[in-house]
Amino acid sequence: MKRTTGTCYYPEHWDKALWAEDARRMVEAGLTWVRIGEFAWSRIEPTPGDFQWEWLDDAIEVLGTAGLKVVLGTPTATPPRWVADKHPDMFAVDVDGKQRGFGSRRHYCFSHEGYQAEAARIVELFAERYGANPHVAAWQTDNEYGCHDTTISYSDAALKAFRFWLKDKYKTIDALNEAWGNVFWSMEYNDFDQIGLPNLTVTEPNPAHSLNFRRFSSDQVVRFNRIQTDIIRKHSKAPLSHNYMGRVTDFDHYKVGDDLEIATWDSYPLGFLEDRVGADVSEQRVYARQGDPDFQALHHDLYRAVGKGRWWVMEQQPGPVNWAPYNPAPLPGMVRLWSWEAFAHGAEAVCYFRWRQAPMAQEQMHAGLLRPDSADAPAMAEAKQVRDEIANAPDVAPYQAPVAMIFDYDAEFAWAVQPHGQGLSYFSLFFETYKALRKMGLSIDILRPETRDFDGYKLIVAPGLMHMDESLKQALTKANGHVMLGPRTGARDGDMVIPTPLPPAIEGLDVIVSRVESLRPDMPEPIAGGGAVTGYRELLEGSVDVVLRSKDGEAAVVSNGDVTYVAAWLNQTALRRVLAPIAEGQGLDVLDLKDGVRVRDTATERFWFNYGASETEYDGRRLEAASVIREERSE
Amino acid sequence: MKRTTGTCYYPEHWDKALWAEDARRMVEAGLTWVRIGEFAWSRIEPTPGDFQWEWLDDAIEVLGTAGLKVVLGTPTATPPRWVADKHPDMFAVDVDGKQRGFGSRRHYCFSHEGYQAEAARIVELFAERYGANPHVAAWQTDNEYGCHDTTISYSDAALKAFRFWLKDKYKTIDALNEAWGNVFWSMEYNDFDQIGLPNLTVTEPNPAHSLNFRRFSSDQVVRFNRIQTDIIRKHSKAPLSHNYMGRVTDFDHYKVGDDLEIATWDSYPLGFLEDRVGADVSEQRVYARQGDPDFQALHHDLYRAVGKGRWWVMEQQPGPVNWAPYNPAPLPGMVRLWSWEAFAHGAEAVCYFRWRQAPMAQEQMHAGLLRPDSADAPAMAEAKQVRDEIANAPDVAPYQAPVAMIFDYDAEFAWAVQPHGQGLSYFSLFFETYKALRKMGLSIDILRPETRDFDGYKLIVAPGLMHMDESLKQALTKANGHVMLGPRTGARDGDMVIPTPLPPAIEGLDVIVSRVESLRPDMPEPIAGGGAVTGYRELLEGSVDVVLRSKDGEAAVVSNGDVTYVAAWLNQTALRRVLAPIAEGQGLDVLDLKDGVRVRDTATERFWFNYGASETEYDGRRLEAASVIREERSE
Amino acid sequence: MKRTTGTCYYPEHWDKALWAEDARRMVEAGLTWVRIGEFAWSRIEPTPGDFQWEWLDDAIEVLGTAGLKVVLGTPTATPPRWVADKHPDMFAVDVDGKQRGFGSRRHYCFSHEGYQAEAARIVELFAERYGANPHVAAWQTDNEYGCHDTTISYSDAALKAFRFWLKDKYKTIDALNEAWGNVFWSMEYNDFDQIGLPNLTVTEPNPAHSLNFRRFSSDQVVRFNRIQTDIIRKHSKAPLSHNYMGRVTDFDHYKVGDDLEIATWDSYPLGFLEDRVGADVSEQRVYARQGDPDFQALHHDLYRAVGKGRWWVMEQQPGPVNWAPYNPAPLPGMVRLWSWEAFAHGAEAVCYFRWRQAPMAQEQMHAGLLRPDSADAPAMAEAKQVRDEIANAPDVAPYQAPVAMIFDYDAEFAWAVQPHGQGLSYFSLFFETYKALRKMGLSIDILRPETRDFDGYKLIVAPGLMHMDESLKQALTKANGHVMLGPRTGARDGDMVIPTPLPPAIEGLDVIVSRVESLRPDMPEPIAGGGAVTGYRELLEGSVDVVLRSKDGEAAVVSNGDVTYVAAWLNQTALRRVLAPIAEGQGLDVLDLKDGVRVRDTATERFWFNYGASETEYDGRRLEAASVIREERSE
Repeated sequence: MKRTTGTCYYPEHWDKALWAEDARRMVEAGLTWVRIGEFAWSRIEPTPGDFQWEWLDDAIEVLGTAGLKVVLGTPTATPPRWVADKHPDMFAVDVDGKQRGFGSRRHYCFSHEGYQAEAARIVELFAERYGANPHVAAWQTDNEYGCHDTTISYSDAALKAFRFWLKDKYKTIDALNEAWGNVFWSMEYNDFDQIGLPNLTVTEPNPAHSLNFRRFSSDQVVRFNRIQTDIIRKHSKAPLSHNYMGRVTDFDHYKVGDDLEIATWDSYPLGFLEDRVGADVSEQRVYARQGDPDFQALHHDLYRAVGKGRWWVMEQQPGPVNWAPYNPAPLPGMVRLWSWEAFAHGAEAVCYFRWRQAPMAQEQMHAGLLRPDSADAPAMAEAKQVRDEIANAPDVAPYQAPVAMIFDYDAEFAWAVQPHGQGLSYFSLFFETYKALRKMGLSIDILRPETRDFDGYKLIVAPGLMHMDESLKQALTKANGHVMLGPRTGARDGDMVIPTPLPPAIEGLDVIVSRVESLRPDMPEPIAGGGAVTGYRELLEGSVDVVLRSKDGEAAVVSNGDVTYVAAWLNQTALRRVLAPIAEGQGLDVLDLKDGVRVRDTATERFWFNYGASETEYDGRRLEAASVIREERSE
Repeated sequence: MKRTTGTCYYPEHWDKALWAEDARRMVEAGLTWVRIGEFAWSRIEPTPGDFQWEWLDDAIEVLGTAGLKVVLGTPTATPPRWVADKHPDMFAVDVDGKQRGFGSRRHYCFSHEGYQAEAARIVELFAERYGANPHVAAWQTDNEYGCHDTTISYSDAALKAFRFWLKDKYKTIDALNEAWGNVFWSMEYNDFDQIGLPNLTVTEPNPAHSLNFRRFSSDQVVRFNRIQTDIIRKHSKAPLSHNYMGRVTDFDHYKVGDDLEIATWDSYPLGFLEDRVGADVSEQRVYARQGDPDFQALHHDLYRAVGKGRWWVMEQQPGPVNWAPYNPAPLPGMVRLWSWEAFAHGAEAVCYFRWRQAPMAQEQMHAGLLRPDSADAPAMAEAKQVRDEIANAPDVAPYQAPVAMIFDYDAEFAWAVQPHGQGLSYFSLFFETYKALRKMGLSIDILRPETRDFDGYKLIVAPGLMHMDESLKQALTKANGHVMLGPRTGARDGDMVIPTPLPPAIEGLDVIVSRVESLRPDMPEPIAGGGAVTGYRELLEGSVDVVLRSKDGEAAVVSNGDVTYVAAWLNQTALRRVLAPIAEGQGLDVLDLKDGVRVRDTATERFWFNYGASETEYDGRRLEAASVIREERSE
Repeated sequence: MKRTTGTCYYPEHWDKALWAEDARRMVEAGLTWVRIGEFAWSRIEPTPGDFQWEWLDDAIEVLGTAGLKVVLGTPTATPPRWVADKHPDMFAVDVDGKQRGFGSRRHYCFSHEGYQAEAARIVELFAERYGANPHVAAWQTDNEYGCHDTTISYSDAALKAFRFWLKDKYKTIDALNEAWGNVFWSMEYNDFDQIGLPNLTVTEPNPAHSLNFRRFSSDQVVRFNRIQTDIIRKHSKAPLSHNYMGRVTDFDHYKVGDDLEIATWDSYPLGFLEDRVGADVSEQRVYARQGDPDFQALHHDLYRAVGKGRWWVMEQQPGPVNWAPYNPAPLPGMVRLWSWEAFAHGAEAVCYFRWRQAPMAQEQMHAGLLRPDSADAPAMAEAKQVRDEIANAPDVAPYQAPVAMIFDYDAEFAWAVQPHGQGLSYFSLFFETYKALRKMGLSIDILRPETRDFDGYKLIVAPGLMHMDESLKQALTKANGHVMLGPRTGARDGDMVIPTPLPPAIEGLDVIVSRVESLRPDMPEPIAGGGAVTGYRELLEGSVDVVLRSKDGEAAVVSNGDVTYVAAWLNQTALRRVLAPIAEGQGLDVLDLKDGVRVRDTATERFWFNYGASETEYDGRRLEAASVIREERSE
């Protein structure tokens, strides 16, 4: 399969007279894909039952006959006002109990049965009409599930569904009370109908209560998506996709992905930098016009796993956006760099969002490939350069990286419920570890926690899996590669209770976590020989080899043969001190990449990226600012 | 007309036996004016229909016969509890949907019809009784419209009125949908009754929706005030006024001012410093006991425009207040300085708030001219010094400054709806530019955006007018003086949509803004030769002379003959580099005032102010700390 | 009476089979006391009227026969879900009007009559059943009144009770209007039923309104507790206690204490450090693993007063907790130090919270004497060391310190209502002064404001008593010791009104506060000769000796013989400059203790504490890190 590019287009925003010329220019720009339809409900069904399909028929025809392949979105992220009038309680409710209303998008609660029926109805109509349309080459369900904090809703609909979900899981209220430890603080229930949502409590709710509510909320997204996929599959053979977001971790993307053929995501490297990357201010300054050098890569690897190998960037930032705290323009070269980075991580397609900047409404300051006056915006030239370059580059091909990291949404939920120290999160722990491996020049596969076959991986890294299934523990101890676990591995059972024997309870690793502590982030605990523990650490008991020790004498990292246990939140220096010797011991080539330089391999290529704003070099290679080099390699 | 002073007095707070002595001491202090009545409703009408006018009759008589002129306030800012009991939904509702209750002041929603009727009723009774009273020399409507964030209300009354206002403006719902671009995200309405208020949306609402709601909210203040002025004019020939606040910009003061003869404002230089000036912390420390050297001046100039030339300070801070984050005492001399600064900007009167410090209730820590025990507070001596000084100074006289700045409330609304970058505001942009001109020793007239005649101005400065009426554009290009525009000039049409051709679309200025970006405030973009862009800039296309260029090569300021376009948010150094040569080219005398020294001219005088806490000098003049010098001059 | 130790135990959390072994190990650890029952309502009465007493009978029997004395807690802090279902409006309501729900603890409003009846019912049943049980050696009412901001509730029940309370206090609405100064802003009421709660007002409410609501809220706690004590006393002769919290100052602990024999408190030195101590960040780092060196001592002294001499630590932190922003482990030695510090201040008992770390629910990361797997946690060894040491130490004995400080909850309420400057609080002022005395090596008694007999005190210190009863003024001026007052002494009458003559109005001290000001905390006003005023100061008029003067010439501290008036918020250096000469003049031995070293005397002992993380010395004594030395002394 060739690497391809595309764009996102809203024919309903423009005079019909523009469509053909737009399509011609898309083809000229080398674009293969055009996503449409996902916000168009009010133009398809302006009033209940009054359908206006013709314009969409025509738009698909115009685009398709120009040579473009259409990705058709279901419009369920933006139900029209009249839908909300029919279902005045269909909105999500925030943690303070306030209903979130109409006037933007994603204004529905996943648990609302009335809206589920409305969504099913409109999706069925879309699928019936376009399921066999030859230009519709793929589908997208909804748009950016979970964006704008919409996964978790404290609505009555959610309460009702949560009780049902709990009853299905625990069967009896005694079982639930026992599992959650509700004897504590007399929180025992007599009946499932007494259970509330874990907001507005006087002090923190039972973490078992909160964790279950997060799991339920995640399941509701999966369930809502499946309603759509079940319907579309009845009418269409085209592959199904959904466009996920960056660092939206409130639902289990793997489970949504199980119902789709392709995972896509919306990559806004500059938009994400301030609020989502979690970098300190000095790094935010250095990368203000480039984005964090690892944040996109992590998501590429994650969504490759979510898509079971098939993944796209559905929305690629092409210039300044409108929604971040600050919205600078990217450095010249970055749109090309981001595009190639996606291909380097195995993307089948990179689609630029959006074709033409809209002059009106919420995203009027969001750049496109065209300006509002239809002139080329700066990104267009870079998109055309990518067009020329992929013409001469290899096809998309499968590739297994030498290093695996397990990313577990349930661990993210558990850490969010119980960070123990202010500011600690699973995602950040994972990201720090991922970054350390990337600075060593290693390519990484992200694996879901259900993985049991680790063949071919030299190094398997799984920090922070607070609940670890026994069979995963078994599979890891049997893996051929080196396994690095911790901190907090197996710290809780499936109901958020500390297990006995104490964690991590890994076969062959004679160590228990006898005590944990969280630390002020401005009080790093130095490690003998370099590096530091920051924010969190565990006190270990047992007889194992100590790899790194804090200056106060406590073990920070221990190992036993092919298993390493990290008993602390390590900074980058310390992570390298642990990981580099292991990787080298496994025969991997460990680089020492500084600043914005990163590497990624495919089966036949090695890519060098310079996220830096100035020219640099590595091993004789000259790396221009904001640029990418593609080299052939033999594996 | 002589320059005069006055005070604010609450006879209802004090034993009647004190009134005559108070009046005597007011006259002794040289005061001309005494404002009363504006919070006295519960003493006039303690229960519905039970009127107690006698005490107010007597108070006016006592004050008037002592030689004072009374400004009588309508008491509508503080309806008594029983009014609220009659209209339990008369309160404003905040952005989170919480109703704001009784127990302080300004507890009403401008859109509530029931309260409008109550207000009309009590105002009619006041006007009937005192309209012809010889001691009532002026009226004040209500008190500090908009203070405590009371302009914008998300109440049901506001919703109903907003729909009515929209229908009146757009006539058909299709026209509204088209103008707002509601096709975006399927936000189209079928009927005006489906439109909600732009709060509690899932993500940001349509900026056209928000901007219209702000314009509506502003109009509701105008409408509420006009109910009162229409009534009072039927009964009285005395001039009408209202006391505006510092940096309350949620409603269009010019439009309220159109219904009044005199604009007054309440000047709390120390109270404003922390939260309203927007200065950085180091400046807040330097001016903790003086206030910002330009903040009062800007409001003096603004309210001179609002008052069509006639304006007062109705409440002048005389000592520590109670309501700021920190409430220091002013430096000795500042009360005199503030008084003279008002006169230098053309004030007819400066009234000190308040006569005697109240020992009870919310403002018990707000200083007055008297202490709670009736002894003179420190401000009294300075008030008496001003009394002596104005006796020997010229009368109030008209004066046209050489420099004009256009201040546009609608631009403030538009920037608030869409700052693009965190912390950017129209007011701050205007204030920074105003400050740069003041540091050059220039006196400034503020003009409203409806101005079309710019005769006599050497320099006309209009930053940030996001929507600029075509006829204003025409008038500016025809002006004799030099015109400086931008950034964001004409960036939106009247419905908050990006126009095509792209902005600024100024005749004779061959330039378009092809892209904009906002920047972290800690990442200034240096300008070649000195100064910097901070926070925001535009990328220009076109053939014009570049006045200043960023070090990365982009044009920051361009010009074409007598029009200069500023394509960025400039810091003080850069602003001076642009403005000083223009002003000198126009024959103006440009000074280089540092620290707290400022200058202001009248027709016959030049005033030198030193806001600094230490003595300084300028051009041989010795300027004591916290002092003012008045010099005669020939224009 | 011997000094004793104990623990808190939850038999309902553990298999019955563990109880006997747990009891045996408690006795082995030298523990005397075991507190149980206070969260066990759902196990005693799982459904309405279905009582399960047997397990509790057995638990008391097992513990008692093992040799332990039981403190039995009433379970009213955690009513089961079914109680809340019976009384759906029994919850407190927060300042934003949101009801706080079920799912944690303290989920009741003190004013709810239905819940008061439920509480009385269960307490009566407890008292009947165990009032005469020989193992029940003491009672605890409820748990941590006021914790999690639960004193103040804006519920309908509170509103109703508040109106009743006001009517009882003021008799007529005219009297209330007059006392509060409601003529200000037309806030006058016609009837008590018009009075609302002081939240959700447009700007700040009348401080008299707020202060009365705080006093009412405090009284409701007293009233709720008295319901319980009245019942228990009918059935039991064992002493009654309640476990107060650290820096919970929303209710008057003295008044609750009047109904109890013993005051206890829950001491979490590390848990309190970040949010409650108010130390700056650098101190938080220095004492991260030890706690503030004065915060516990202050509470020990305060609760000794609340308990009229009899007091315990009911919950002593034994390791990391779960609820602070950061939760580090204490330095080795601190558990012993904290225990001995309590004894040095006169504690009868120190009980460790909790026996075994719970693996489930909210406090699963809260350390105990045992780990979740029943192995000894690190604190156990220190508890055993304390066991051995108290065996050879003197009994608890009465001791009067040479220095007294008056702590007044009403002053805390008044400052909270009107801090005047951001961040100023009575508690902080008191704490800073207490710390200064402690650095001088002085032992302190805390007295309640009703104290009239100051015999035996060399120095009596009472900062910040905003309202000072005339008879207290009289008693203080007659005291033999030196009296230090201010700032803000007598600044308000009993209804929060500034009195005339102006404060402080102390007989024999010819001075009035003619003006006050609050200052930015980063603008200290230096004092001539060293030290500084920070945050707040008063301008004085009168003829007295000036002890310290600000560099700008204003008096900061004045005195007249044996009365010193402090007219400012002084930093530590300035406080020492005032206090040390006075103390020395009174014949006290003044030390100069630095860093973490502190001293406390009993009748026969002097204790030296080193809160520091490194060894230090004083006067030849070697003080190890985190350690305590006990010396004998003759008074």
